[in-house]
Amino acid sequence: MRKYTFCVLFISFLFRLNPGFAQTARQPNFIIILADDLGYGDLSSYGHPTIRTPNLDRMALEGTRFTQFYVAANVCSPSRAALLTGRLPIRNGVFGTNAANKVFFTNSTSGLPKRETTLPKALKGKGYQTAIVGKWHLGHLPEFLPLNYGFDSYLGIPYSNDMGKEPSFAARDGKAFGTTNPPLPLYRDDKLIETEPDQNLLTKRFTTEVTDLITKNRSKPFFIYYASPFPHVPLHASPGFAGKSKRGPYGDVVEELDWSVGQILSKLKEHKLDKNTLVIFLSDNGPWLIRSLIDETGGSAGLLYEAKASTYEGGMRVPAIAWMPGTVKNQISSAVATSMDLYPTILQLTGIDIPKDKPLDGNNIIDILKGKSDKVTDVVYYYDANNLYAIRKGAYKAHFKTNASYSQKPAEEHNPPLLYNLEHDPSEKFEIGKKYPEVVAELVAAYKKHLEGVVPVEAELDKR
Amino acid sequence: MRKYTFCVLFISFLFRLNPGFAQTARQPNFIIILADDLGYGDLSSYGHPTIRTPNLDRMALEGTRFTQFYVAANVCSPSRAALLTGRLPIRNGVFGTNAANKVFFTNSTSGLPKRETTLPKALKGKGYQTAIVGKWHLGHLPEFLPLNYGFDSYLGIPYSNDMGKEPSFAARDGKAFGTTNPPLPLYRDDKLIETEPDQNLLTKRFTTEVTDLITKNRSKPFFIYYASPFPHVPLHASPGFAGKSKRGPYGDVVEELDWSVGQILSKLKEHKLDKNTLVIFLSDNGPWLIRSLIDETGGSAGLLYEAKASTYEGGMRVPAIAWMPGTVKNQISSAVATSMDLYPTILQLTGIDIPKDKPLDGNNIIDILKGKSDKVTDVVYYYDANNLYAIRKGAYKAHFKTNASYSQKPAEEHNPPLLYNLEHDPSEKFEIGKKYPEVVAELVAAYKKHLEGVVPVEAELDKR
Repeated sequence: MRKYTFCVLFISFLFRLNPGFAQTARQPNFIIILADDLGYGDLSSYGHPTIRTPNLDRMALEGTRFTQFYVAANVCSPSRAALLTGRLPIRNGVFGTNAANKVFFTNSTSGLPKRETTLPKALKGKGYQTAIVGKWHLGHLPEFLPLNYGFDSYLGIPYSNDMGKEPSFAARDGKAFGTTNPPLPLYRDDKLIETEPDQNLLTKRFTTEVTDLITKNRSKPFFIYYASPFPHVPLHASPGFAGKSKRGPYGDVVEELDWSVGQILSKLKEHKLDKNTLVIFLSDNGPWLIRSLIDETGGSAGLLYEAKASTYEGGMRVPAIAWMPGTVKNQISSAVATSMDLYPTILQLTGIDIPKDKPLDGNNIIDILKGKSDKVTDVVYYYDANNLYAIRKGAYKAHFKTNASYSQKPAEEHNPPLLYNLEHDPSEKFEIGKKYPEVVAELVAAYKKHLEGVVPVEAELDKR
Repeated sequence: MRKYTFCVLFISFLFRLNPGFAQTARQPNFIIILADDLGYGDLSSYGHPTIRTPNLDRMALEGTRFTQFYVAANVCSPSRAALLTGRLPIRNGVFGTNAANKVFFTNSTSGLPKRETTLPKALKGKGYQTAIVGKWHLGHLPEFLPLNYGFDSYLGIPYSNDMGKEPSFAARDGKAFGTTNPPLPLYRDDKLIETEPDQNLLTKRFTTEVTDLITKNRSKPFFIYYASPFPHVPLHASPGFAGKSKRGPYGDVVEELDWSVGQILSKLKEHKLDKNTLVIFLSDNGPWLIRSLIDETGGSAGLLYEAKASTYEGGMRVPAIAWMPGTVKNQISSAVATSMDLYPTILQLTGIDIPKDKPLDGNNIIDILKGKSDKVTDVVYYYDANNLYAIRKGAYKAHFKTNASYSQKPAEEHNPPLLYNLEHDPSEKFEIGKKYPEVVAELVAAYKKHLEGVVPVEAELDKR
């Protein structure tokens, strides 16, 4: 008894001596929080005038706020596939060959190819508990649901929140978009537990699921992928948030998502897991700005041109914040990075060897997160479905093809490509190709080289 | 001797007890820092991806960062006249009646009317030391220079930094803009001390002037109006900043201005004047975005539409930060306020009665600064020269006339006016007049009522 008391005292003494002791004794945890259709300009810390996001702003102040962070696609499914595989959609197969097949729909018959080693699948090899909460959108048929890809648990919807019975496009052309869809399913693991769930309560339910997972796994390493279905339309917020934001319904939803992030970070602190958990917040693509032709429910790309579904910056540069007090530096970083970097970064932080069997499109960015480097990703590729529209190398971006979604300009090819200096001119206003022919030549060469290295795979999004 | 020593010890004891003691014993000081053509989106804290403004960002974190702060005009001279008089240009006379007369030029024959009671003139009545450093632009002839308006000292240029011999528009149409101007004058008080000063060194010289003024007046109440001539073109930065910003020359200049602000705040802290000095940073109007058709030297209005010379938000909503640790709350404020509010706010903080002889267009915003209220300015007026183009009331803005400067759309009248909800839709994308006819009617009434109350005065900018 005495020995036991002494032991407890001694251990608590050690913990007092070094409060990080308990936290560093084990593998780091990872939480990826993915917003849906949140624009580059939609958080206070990214300059929105009337949306208030104090939790994300504090996360940004305590961590790294990226200003040149990209996703791999300008719409949902391919962006998510790239995040989870560290590979471009053109390599992992989650792309279509025409404009109608840019994401998985309710009549799609495919999903993320099983040959891919997803992030949770790789982490399982190191004993991680893995969970997905929220929107999947990489195949809704039973064989393509998340538990087939390395996730231990799932609470969420299999595709976008407008793919149920609730019409979200009714106002545009008089035709209701969603009405031919089956009722929106809600899954717990591989079981359908509800249809047409009350979307007003989804953020609260998903938040509880994430915080419960943190509590449940507090002494095991875990990976949680929390893919909020919002602020994708239809917009739904819980009674505590609905009608509260100056920004209207869109702001209500973003502010509830901000609250949700705050709950998660608090739960990590409560369990003293904050110093041992890398949390990444980002959006899956630009805002659905075409909504602003219909109503006020489309987000804002801030100073960036264009929006979701476009290969201009507004479509593919997203707000992104990394947080792990004591490890991730508190900084604003203009290093170029992409969502595909999370895959090798997370694997290397856990000591897992990067799989060598397939080409990866991400880089380990831990030195950027620690503030030891701002070495940029060499080249960013802007695909629209199976077409490489543009590339960025250093500060320069060359558009070989453009197709502005919100401004509804038709697709156009550019030969020579249009050139912009994104660091001088983030809004892509001033074309400088004639002034820098040698840069154009360099980007044309990089473009060709990349395309030569892409081995064709089947287009999963075409399968309907 | 002993008595003296005891006294010194006792006083220093009191100071230790309450370090604010020395600072609160006297009237507050005021420093207004006005940037020139800095856009709403050009600071890190307002979302710029590659311009780094750590000093202004810290000022924003320690103070109030406004997200809906307006100036009274979309170009230099009238905006400055309104700031210093608390009155709309249409009342103080600094307006023209045609598009060619929007500011004072080198052949202007007038200046700010002497009948106006400027802020420094009013403060002189309470024994303030008053100084202007930088750009005046309210009349360059001897009788219109700053010492005629209540300023005790002046170091600066009488108009814009492109109104000398250095061409700034050469690239647009082949004709050099500045070459018919006399050499750019630099004044010390009412003496011309240099022409065509090395603009690369202006920010450093003006910063030294401001910090010297703080030191010199550290035991007297002071008012310093530091009107930087930058980032107006031509862009000039000192050797320590030139070529350093990722954003290019425009970023170099903004980053040196940020450094300048940091020097000023440090000097206040050094003299323990920080808790007793209200510092306001703002811009005079939107960015000169038309520059982005010529080169990369135009700023960014962030998510706002349009630019300098326009009555869309990009022309007249500016970055604005207020700082006075212990008095001004650390907050992001979306309260609607204007540069004309500084006049009554500053006067009331010093106990000076607001002059009753002329209508004022500003309100005391001290409760907003203290975080005790977010009551908004009732109506914002968007004048273009002598024409009232638009008004804002609450969240709503009605455009009676539009004239987009950057997008080069011709002037257009709107009857009924175009209606936008600026809090839902800050980018003015989605017109909602048909949906809210009662709001349109309310704004039409406010528009008419305002115009009925405006008593015509002479247009000083027409005098050439």
